[in-house]
Amino acid sequence: MIQQLTVIGVGLIGGSLARALRRAGFVGEVVGCGRSLGNLQRARELGVIDRYHQDPAQAVAGADLVFIAVPLGAMAATFASIRDHLAPGAILTDGGSVKGSVVADARQVFGRLPPRFVPGHPIAGTEQSGVEASFAELYRNRRVILTPLPETDPVATAQVQAMWEACGAEVTQMAVDHHDEVLAATSHLPHLLAYGLVDSLARLRENDEIFRYAAGGFRDFTRIASSHPIMWRDICLANREALGQMLARFQRELAELAADVEGGDGEALLAVFERAKAARDRYVGSQG
Amino acid sequence: MIQQLTVIGVGLIGGSLARALRRAGFVGEVVGCGRSLGNLQRARELGVIDRYHQDPAQAVAGADLVFIAVPLGAMAATFASIRDHLAPGAILTDGGSVKGSVVADARQVFGRLPPRFVPGHPIAGTEQSGVEASFAELYRNRRVILTPLPETDPVATAQVQAMWEACGAEVTQMAVDHHDEVLAATSHLPHLLAYGLVDSLARLRENDEIFRYAAGGFRDFTRIASSHPIMWRDICLANREALGQMLARFQRELAELAADVEGGDGEALLAVFERAKAARDRYVGSQG
Repeated sequence: MIQQLTVIGVGLIGGSLARALRRAGFVGEVVGCGRSLGNLQRARELGVIDRYHQDPAQAVAGADLVFIAVPLGAMAATFASIRDHLAPGAILTDGGSVKGSVVADARQVFGRLPPRFVPGHPIAGTEQSGVEASFAELYRNRRVILTPLPETDPVATAQVQAMWEACGAEVTQMAVDHHDEVLAATSHLPHLLAYGLVDSLARLRENDEIFRYAAGGFRDFTRIASSHPIMWRDICLANREALGQMLARFQRELAELAADVEGGDGEALLAVFERAKAARDRYVGSQG
Repeated sequence: MIQQLTVIGVGLIGGSLARALRRAGFVGEVVGCGRSLGNLQRARELGVIDRYHQDPAQAVAGADLVFIAVPLGAMAATFASIRDHLAPGAILTDGGSVKGSVVADARQVFGRLPPRFVPGHPIAGTEQSGVEASFAELYRNRRVILTPLPETDPVATAQVQAMWEACGAEVTQMAVDHHDEVLAATSHLPHLLAYGLVDSLARLRENDEIFRYAAGGFRDFTRIASSHPIMWRDICLANREALGQMLARFQRELAELAADVEGGDGEALLAVFERAKAARDRYVGSQG
């Protein structure tokens, strides 16, 4: 049970956490913080938060748990603005999609990794953003990865885990680097490909007509290209090393496929397609 | 109104056409044809067809309209097997995803393009296949592209158009080459990328764990990698020229993105992401 939760960045991720914890009766007061006054007012109207401050220093005062859900590029500045204002014993956690950069930012701003900072990442989201898009069920049956470090207080980790479990999530722990590799493969690279494909088609002279004939498969495939551009720029920069490696790997695969198409090598294409279909059907499962 | 419709290949595409035309009261008898006896028996049990022959020559006897929905690699053999058995005046059309190769196959088998052959392509489908997956609503509000040639009988084209409109589809006409370019961009390249990405990840040593953390965005992005491998091998081979060009274009885009990631060029990445999001939101629309 959290007495005062402060959410910095009351958008889809932060707003959905507040809603889920309220519904679970896991939180007393929710204080919001963010740069857009309109969004904070809307969050209060919607009952997602009880009150707000635009100044992070004021917003974290008295909080026993602070959740940071800002784009990765704003993480260091956010740490700096709250560093000297956290209540004694306050637990700090975040929802950033890359963990190496957040840990590095925390180390730099605080001088060392704060023992009660628990880096975290809920594997959930939609291509929508803002508090209007938030909903209490976002984390139900979804995975949350925590990446505590040797210096992290295990009690703080347990409390953050309990918070996410109260939202219906399944919590696992992972090393920071491993998290960033896994997410580069399953999330960051797919987003880059979807953005790249849509941009590539949008640059075609006759793109108007091309998009008109895009059917259901294309809509699903490119849905993630409607995600928040700034958030994804920050993710690509923050995880550039692991993403760069996955991207290079994919470029080699694509070069092979291009050679197979050009050479008319149906056997090689079929082998790739069958292997991919089997892998997807096996792991992603029958939910499609 | 069609007296006897013969569907060669009673799967998702052929079966859904038969179901839609029946529901619309646009067809008398439906005769099925295919290589799998089990599938034909199931199609009759489901009421999708009235009777069947495994021999195409027998199946097309007496049909006033023949619809061919076989993988592109089986198109030439199918044309050859029915060439001398079509009823006088029978209209022939198909559902192939590439039109250049189908037209070339028809020219080669028939010696010239039959005037009552209307090449067509319903832009619809799911990653499922087989008659079990077929449903009458598949074509409702979807586009069907017909690519009649100068030698095509306009009356035959009008009748095929009326057939698709009876299924609730919106029919447009396009030149063969243009069709193949548009589909390379919006369908064939995305499928190749989805297959390539899943295969690339499946080849990773720790792929078991990687797929476990794949979330909703990944599921949508890779859904088309669960499509029928043989059908897609045939499409990639049949449209290799247009697909190869689109693929080369995309590889250049990806090389630029890789350089931006490696160089940490956030401005360039943001420009691509914003352009892509704007294009997708504009053309694909609010249905997501």
